[in-house]
Amino acid sequence: MSNPRPIGVFDSGIGGLTVVKALRDRLPNETIVYLGDTARVPYGPKSPDTVQRYALELAHMLMKKNAKALVVACNTVSSVALPLLTRKFSVPVIGVIEPGARAALQATHNRHVGVIGTRATIRSGAYEKALHATDNNVRVSSRACPLLVPLIEEGLLDDDVTDRVIVRYLEPLLSDGIDTLVLGCTHYPLLSAAIARVIGNEITLVDSAENCASAVHETLDRQSLLSPATERGKLQVALTDAADNFLNVAREALRLNFDEVELQPLP
Amino acid sequence: MSNPRPIGVFDSGIGGLTVVKALRDRLPNETIVYLGDTARVPYGPKSPDTVQRYALELAHMLMKKNAKALVVACNTVSSVALPLLTRKFSVPVIGVIEPGARAALQATHNRHVGVIGTRATIRSGAYEKALHATDNNVRVSSRACPLLVPLIEEGLLDDDVTDRVIVRYLEPLLSDGIDTLVLGCTHYPLLSAAIARVIGNEITLVDSAENCASAVHETLDRQSLLSPATERGKLQVALTDAADNFLNVAREALRLNFDEVELQPLP
Repeated sequence: MSNPRPIGVFDSGIGGLTVVKALRDRLPNETIVYLGDTARVPYGPKSPDTVQRYALELAHMLMKKNAKALVVACNTVSSVALPLLTRKFSVPVIGVIEPGARAALQATHNRHVGVIGTRATIRSGAYEKALHATDNNVRVSSRACPLLVPLIEEGLLDDDVTDRVIVRYLEPLLSDGIDTLVLGCTHYPLLSAAIARVIGNEITLVDSAENCASAVHETLDRQSLLSPATERGKLQVALTDAADNFLNVAREALRLNFDEVELQPLP
Repeated sequence: MSNPRPIGVFDSGIGGLTVVKALRDRLPNETIVYLGDTARVPYGPKSPDTVQRYALELAHMLMKKNAKALVVACNTVSSVALPLLTRKFSVPVIGVIEPGARAALQATHNRHVGVIGTRATIRSGAYEKALHATDNNVRVSSRACPLLVPLIEEGLLDDDVTDRVIVRYLEPLLSDGIDTLVLGCTHYPLLSAAIARVIGNEITLVDSAENCASAVHETLDRQSLLSPATERGKLQVALTDAADNFLNVAREALRLNFDEVELQPLP
């Protein structure tokens, strides 16, 4: 019996399951081990030093499970810890920001990209930096949307209140003239349908979960690390503290199949 | 020149300023030193051990400013650290839960009290315990309202979206038959007007900030610690990390006067 090496995915909490969903759809032969640091969520308000330390701990825990690649399914960690993780581990490390920024640059026609995310992500300017690293002339309008994560975690994915809040947040970006919008938070793909409903189809939505999965696919392929097509990938979910209701919201909305969630206390 | 001892007030963040406002209105002769642990907010998801440790640190910082009483303007800390703080410090320590519970028992006619708060506060059952400690026959209906703090921190105090969310949260409590509602989170007094507008005047609102201030007044009076009526109290605000926009929201909504916010890094 084969025992293929898994892809290790981690996040500060549950939101990274949107990346897992995109990976499952794209790479059904891969086994995925997900680790959510629910004991210490949220990372956004923490200092870069602390976030780096936590990221190393989580990455070590996944490496003990023999991960063949590390996927950082968290914007905060991606923005401050990716170089460190790449240096410390020999396996490929893939984050969410760089793939999202690259997809946005491919999608925009008028060279004006919108970015939405949590206060911490927007304040960090991580997407702006990634966009400007490739194209210094692209215009970026960004906006923090602090109500979206709480609305998602309350399960209000298809709800009039959520639609109104989305309109309120996006109107200034639309009047600014963006033609592409990056969903710069791993929770936000759960609102893709609501956002598309509200803003119509003139704006291209860039889902950073999708684009992260596509980058993982490319990387594994390039390094000949893909599992054989005969494998049937499994999904294991571990959390550092008991899950709350949002796990059920995400599992149902994403139609993700996994067994018992493992409680994996921090060392 | 007199240099009166201040009342020390602390919270995990900015929300406790509602307690400061109630104290300023009731005790204008008292000087107040406020310490908000914005570097480590929120406390709700943290373990009781961690919250106790943080509470001790903050209390020590206030005692160094010669506080004559400690006011715990935070539901999470009040629910897990009050006995410890009372044991460790010789000055009076007053929290928000006990005074709120007492006021609710005085207000209810049909012996059915509603409690709203954050997920962590409701999960702790702290108000239920405090209510039942005095009257085992009182009926308690409680509900976590996780969207209210983000809505308040976004400054949506007088907003249609907020009103809709309030209706959604409170309807089950109203159909349950409560006649009294405890605002079990120090942020919530900022929504008193919105809540009163939505639920009408058949329900008595119990504002735990008001009742905490009243308990502080009684305690200082009983222990002859009140400042003389000739004093003009001042307010100093210190935070453990840079303030975000919510400080301005709270300052404006509460009409609180204070100078520069002091940045007081953790030891």
